[in-house]
Amino acid sequence: MSSRRIILLAHGSSDKRWCETFETLAEPTLKAVTNSRIAYMELAAPSLEAVVHEGVATGNREFTVVPLFLAAGRHLRKDVPAMIAELEKSTGASITLSPPIGENPLLGLAIKDVVALQLDPNAGQ
Amino acid sequence: MSSRRIILLAHGSSDKRWCETFETLAEPTLKAVTNSRIAYMELAAPSLEAVVHEGVATGNREFTVVPLFLAAGRHLRKDVPAMIAELEKSTGASITLSPPIGENPLLGLAIKDVVALQLDPNAGQ
Repeated sequence: MSSRRIILLAHGSSDKRWCETFETLAEPTLKAVTNSRIAYMELAAPSLEAVVHEGVATGNREFTVVPLFLAAGRHLRKDVPAMIAELEKSTGASITLSPPIGENPLLGLAIKDVVALQLDPNAGQ
Repeated sequence: MSSRRIILLAHGSSDKRWCETFETLAEPTLKAVTNSRIAYMELAAPSLEAVVHEGVATGNREFTVVPLFLAAGRHLRKDVPAMIAELEKSTGASITLSPPIGENPLLGLAIKDVVALQLDPNAGQ
């Protein structure tokens, strides 16, 4: 692990409440995982570019970008890989793009628990 | 619970792979929760409208829509409530809109587990 920086990448929005939801979602990871950060693809700060540049400036050479997206659409198939290729070229860093979180079966199980709780708030976990 | 139909609402996409990811995400809930369905807001079938109409035709009068969205943006603040108001008017059904799944703390915990697994695939779950 050590000097690899983990970037939780959200889409971004000009709506502050939207970003706050993602900051809350990211919180457990940011607390648990050393050298992890949140970044936004567009419309909000900090940008992916800013977080990579700041990381390189403080000695990180390897990055893993974990998309806080439920599924891969155009952004994750085209836009983000293009941004990453450009950042690798301009900084010399190595940047790995992970699958979106929604492709992990753990998310489907969490959704089931969320729905069960919404239907019966007294249900145990 | 009984005759209430639960609708997991995804955004929808013309990209078949995108919808397949959501179908996989919905699977544990659809298996565990009686009378639950998946529906799409746009660009994919079945539509929210189709699932509500089919539900009403088969005797359901109450629906809960659970958005498979990480956060509430324009769609969940404006478009979906407008669709729901229209469907309530045209069908006489009662339709409740839940918060997006990403507003539940369980999702943030699942994300932490996903990231931990991606960093160390041998880590126990």
